[in-house]
Amino acid sequence: MENFDYWNRTFWAFGRGTLGRVGELTERFAGKDANVLLHFGGGSIKRNGVYDVVVRALRGRGIRFVELGGVVPNPRLSLVREGIRLCRKEKISFILAVGGGSVIDSAKAIAAGVPEENGDVWKIFVERPRLKSAIDVATVLTIPATGSEMSPNTVITDEESRLKLGYGDEKLRPIFSIVDPELFFTIPQNQIANGVSDMMSHIFERYFSNTPNCRLTDGLCESVLRTIIASALALRRDAHDYDAWAEIGFAGTMAHNNLLGLGREQDWACHGMEHEISAIYDVAHGAGLSVVTPAWMKYVLAEKAAKLAQFARNVFGLDSGGNDIETARLGIGELVKFYKEMGLPVTMVELGIRDDSKFEEMAKKAVLSRSRDGKEIPQGHFRKLFSDDIVKIYRLAQNA
Amino acid sequence: MENFDYWNRTFWAFGRGTLGRVGELTERFAGKDANVLLHFGGGSIKRNGVYDVVVRALRGRGIRFVELGGVVPNPRLSLVREGIRLCRKEKISFILAVGGGSVIDSAKAIAAGVPEENGDVWKIFVERPRLKSAIDVATVLTIPATGSEMSPNTVITDEESRLKLGYGDEKLRPIFSIVDPELFFTIPQNQIANGVSDMMSHIFERYFSNTPNCRLTDGLCESVLRTIIASALALRRDAHDYDAWAEIGFAGTMAHNNLLGLGREQDWACHGMEHEISAIYDVAHGAGLSVVTPAWMKYVLAEKAAKLAQFARNVFGLDSGGNDIETARLGIGELVKFYKEMGLPVTMVELGIRDDSKFEEMAKKAVLSRSRDGKEIPQGHFRKLFSDDIVKIYRLAQNA
Repeated sequence: MENFDYWNRTFWAFGRGTLGRVGELTERFAGKDANVLLHFGGGSIKRNGVYDVVVRALRGRGIRFVELGGVVPNPRLSLVREGIRLCRKEKISFILAVGGGSVIDSAKAIAAGVPEENGDVWKIFVERPRLKSAIDVATVLTIPATGSEMSPNTVITDEESRLKLGYGDEKLRPIFSIVDPELFFTIPQNQIANGVSDMMSHIFERYFSNTPNCRLTDGLCESVLRTIIASALALRRDAHDYDAWAEIGFAGTMAHNNLLGLGREQDWACHGMEHEISAIYDVAHGAGLSVVTPAWMKYVLAEKAAKLAQFARNVFGLDSGGNDIETARLGIGELVKFYKEMGLPVTMVELGIRDDSKFEEMAKKAVLSRSRDGKEIPQGHFRKLFSDDIVKIYRLAQNA
Repeated sequence: MENFDYWNRTFWAFGRGTLGRVGELTERFAGKDANVLLHFGGGSIKRNGVYDVVVRALRGRGIRFVELGGVVPNPRLSLVREGIRLCRKEKISFILAVGGGSVIDSAKAIAAGVPEENGDVWKIFVERPRLKSAIDVATVLTIPATGSEMSPNTVITDEESRLKLGYGDEKLRPIFSIVDPELFFTIPQNQIANGVSDMMSHIFERYFSNTPNCRLTDGLCESVLRTIIASALALRRDAHDYDAWAEIGFAGTMAHNNLLGLGREQDWACHGMEHEISAIYDVAHGAGLSVVTPAWMKYVLAEKAAKLAQFARNVFGLDSGGNDIETARLGIGELVKFYKEMGLPVTMVELGIRDDSKFEEMAKKAVLSRSRDGKEIPQGHFRKLFSDDIVKIYRLAQNA
């Protein structure tokens, strides 16, 4: 186990009816005199009534707020810039993000970009400085997936350059997050599946590590993965199963608040490779991950059979008579089977990507976006991947 | 799963050499102008050099501090009162507890008792009001056991009335905690065993719950228990095994920061029954728990076989052909075997308690200490225990 610091400041209000506490918590954490930015996405929170509850709660307590809607999946730099201008003009002191990970990530990028001293907001994503300050963000989660409700991270797409970059700073960890599983009942099945794929990947990126002696966190990862898989299948049968949603809501937050990744080198290659896909093809992140992940597992299998076999044994209860390579293959097969049962794509074609014309470009971007000297910065740590590795993985993902 | 709030503000500095950060972290969290109370126990931190490191670090940064040593296991109200007087006189603004759970619990009780508006400190333990304010506490952990380094809880013994009472308030959750596993190398084997017994019990008190649909937290509990058992046996063989200590240090903190208990009714009967033993006989808490716990499990077995069987299956990998009662018995047997391997007592006699003369008195205190009308307030939730149940459990613990 490696040394670590951990500081998770998010106040977590979890359970049935906790949406009703949004006014109380905003007043408590933002203060009575706050100027709040209410940030959200498209029309879903207006259709399902969440928007009305939040607006009524803020008005009822006399909390001043301005609104900025319009966040889309793979949230965009242009709206972030608009939000920053709005916050400066309106002297916003607190951002309340009501939505899924895209809305929360957009709110965090705005929060980082408002203080002039942090410099241009996109430069923060490219150069990754430590933030000098940030506006406080709080969340009402409407889709469990990205774990952004308790993470210091945000991912933004510059739609002009088609660059999708992630950034993290402890100042961006939400002040409070409301996770009310009853809000999840109206999520369509494909979005459930995408969310489940994303949260599983957040665990994979931590679990597949070369750091030895991480028994406790390995066990936590395996245990949360087992819960996600069982609960996701329950939701496939009944999207109004509160108990399954509670497990998924809890698991999604746990998957990315970094408790499961403490004391270990993390990987993040699959996220990196997927970001290049969704930056160009604008596919759902979770769908991109269910295509890339099994291909990546197959690519690293020969070298990394032991950990993949541990995954097969402890998550799926599979074992091929003690042979690691064969056991690992069984585990990858079972993961693919699970993705299929969830209706997730497992090939590039199912993602709508019918040729390999952009694989080279995507692979180069994955390793060069942050390079200053034109030398490739490999993706991943479990197995370092250069652009030629990444092209091969994309090709493996053409036919699963 | 039940609704919950969770807010864990402790900054966790974990790993080799993190003792060296005590000055930096105290300055960061207490401020340059703080008046610090340095609180500790007997001579062990002076013998092993920890005291010198801390004192040099504080002096090196010009942080003013006064000292109060002398905390003993089952920390005492008289020293807490002395600490409160000292803090008021010296205008202390921050308490740095360097030691194990007793020192940290003593520090928390002082922190709660200093503000006059909270009333008399012992009244806080008896009446359990919410604190209006408290002095900030930080810790350097020298024995992993109680989890007090990341919990809001404290347990204090009034040595005159022989009452041992617990109290918790979020204001008492430490501001920062340093967990440096290298500090644990000199802990004697019996203290290792007591600590392991205590942290396991913190998980049992949460795991044995009647709340349905707690799949995720059940899995976390089982996984941390498995890690504790394996790592504790490794330390029995080699008390200088850094990797095993890192797992135990991590696990001990996780066992009681309440993440594993979120969304469920908790039990706490074994802790309650043990507190009556150590209040009268002044035995080590962990030793009392390894005596009481198997007896409690046997007592509730007939009614609660399903969960006890789940424990046997998922923690020890034992199964008696699907029969819950038999499987549960196997699990209890395996737990007793583990306690014995750790050198822990499993009978009252091994604790030095040779007769049952005080069982009635202890059982009555367990259910009457906080009663205002003389009616018994049962211990536990998994199975509510009145004084006659508790006497029977103490008797079961006479011969394991």
